[in-house]
Amino acid sequence: MLKLTEQESLELLGSVTLGRVVFTQQALPAIRPVNHIVDEEAVIIRSHLGAAIVSQSAGRGGSVVAYEAENLDPVEHLGWSVIVTGTARLVTEPAAVTRYRTMLRPWVDREMDEVISIQVEMITGIRLVDGRPHD
Amino acid sequence: MLKLTEQESLELLGSVTLGRVVFTQQALPAIRPVNHIVDEEAVIIRSHLGAAIVSQSAGRGGSVVAYEAENLDPVEHLGWSVIVTGTARLVTEPAAVTRYRTMLRPWVDREMDEVISIQVEMITGIRLVDGRPHD
Repeated sequence: MLKLTEQESLELLGSVTLGRVVFTQQALPAIRPVNHIVDEEAVIIRSHLGAAIVSQSAGRGGSVVAYEAENLDPVEHLGWSVIVTGTARLVTEPAAVTRYRTMLRPWVDREMDEVISIQVEMITGIRLVDGRPHD
Repeated sequence: MLKLTEQESLELLGSVTLGRVVFTQQALPAIRPVNHIVDEEAVIIRSHLGAAIVSQSAGRGGSVVAYEAENLDPVEHLGWSVIVTGTARLVTEPAAVTRYRTMLRPWVDREMDEVISIQVEMITGIRLVDGRPHD
């Protein structure tokens, strides 16, 4: 197993469009697959769960979520995985919302979905090599 | 979008070997890709993070985690996703540990990994059809 640098991890994350956002909902761990783009140091997603992901109690400070993307071969045990921890905030600036909406297609069409920006605060990545992972 | 029954969801989960366990670590949302098998109403995984996933404070009661697996085409927007919520417990019975270890290959070889059983308490699944998801 190789540990990737932050820059390598961010580049790999930006090379795919599917990932999973991890948050807390009603005090339970929750996860949803979503599409994403990487815009500078932020992961941008759309979800109708915006209100759940960006908890109301967190207010303007946002709330901490995780985001994961990978390209793993479950048989050969090759590929990579990147995990982000960051602060999620609703994107409310109209021009930004419009721009991101055109770049992101939601998995489930709903009129009321929201655009969420996850500011990357920590990013780690690993790559499995030779099909024989080792530390 | 079609909602799957619990039985359909469990069968799809058992049809793949790669998923992601979602838990809380040091008060932050955390996620790790792992291999799994489905054994009756439980999802069985191996991880060196057993102590983190099954929090010590939870004791014998176990701790609540989420588990997600999917087979999604990010371009065509076809496929399925299954999400489990359940109670995670360390498997300690020696014969069960040995049996599960032979059935599960860890993503990263470590001597100190543990076998974790996630008893399924809630399972939901969706299937995206026709590449044009709708509710």
